[in-house]
Amino acid sequence: MNKCELCQPKSIDVLWKNKLFYVLDAKDKQFPGFIRVVSIKHIKEMSELEREERLCLLDILVCLEKLMIKTMQPEKVNYAQFGNMTPHLHWHLIPRYQDDDKFPESPWGINQRQCPLQQLERREQLAQAFFAEIPQVLSREFNSDGQ
Amino acid sequence: MNKCELCQPKSIDVLWKNKLFYVLDAKDKQFPGFIRVVSIKHIKEMSELEREERLCLLDILVCLEKLMIKTMQPEKVNYAQFGNMTPHLHWHLIPRYQDDDKFPESPWGINQRQCPLQQLERREQLAQAFFAEIPQVLSREFNSDGQ
Repeated sequence: MNKCELCQPKSIDVLWKNKLFYVLDAKDKQFPGFIRVVSIKHIKEMSELEREERLCLLDILVCLEKLMIKTMQPEKVNYAQFGNMTPHLHWHLIPRYQDDDKFPESPWGINQRQCPLQQLERREQLAQAFFAEIPQVLSREFNSDGQ
Repeated sequence: MNKCELCQPKSIDVLWKNKLFYVLDAKDKQFPGFIRVVSIKHIKEMSELEREERLCLLDILVCLEKLMIKTMQPEKVNYAQFGNMTPHLHWHLIPRYQDDDKFPESPWGINQRQCPLQQLERREQLAQAFFAEIPQVLSREFNSDGQ
């Protein structure tokens, strides 16, 4: 039995999907708006995707970046693809702000401060607006064949 | 005067370049083979590239991933694009091994152990073989117009 958690996401956390990829609310308390884009195929590395699939993935990531910038106005958008713990291809997309817990360190770096609670609450609201637009915007750009 | 360090890389560290991107030896002692792919244009976010430029960037990253896997046989290839400290678009590409200092944490995570010196020296040799093949392989795939 396949016990990979990314092969069996909780459907409540899936914000959008097509035949190739799905988008997950990472529910990260430090970084409201943190999402993941996950391959539906259980593969490990980017080079295991077909080129057309990779281009679709990049287009989805950049479409989400643009929507994140529009709705959340971060200082910087951060991308990462590790998969050292869960070797099932997935990308992290994280909006960063100068007063977030770790800025300018990576989201996996050492805490630099505690982000003011009021800012976190404000960004949680912006994240909900971001999440609410994802299905409509991605479905307009990418049909269910992943093109 | 533009003081961005990625606008003025040390030429000795540049492994390859075309009109759009250059590849940098990150000279990271913890992670032999760590390279960066840097936009020549001084821009901040992926969405500021033209789509054709982004596809070229992705093709370069995946070409480098394949060559890294062939020459260095890592457990996993890690990608990251932050730019919080240096807001000039650049990608980190890092070969990871089960006995490296931080596995399975991110390259920016907490140290888990000290990688055996013999392994580091062996990987430093593999990294040199990887670097040596980069100019030939990338020049075969991508001409100087970045196509």
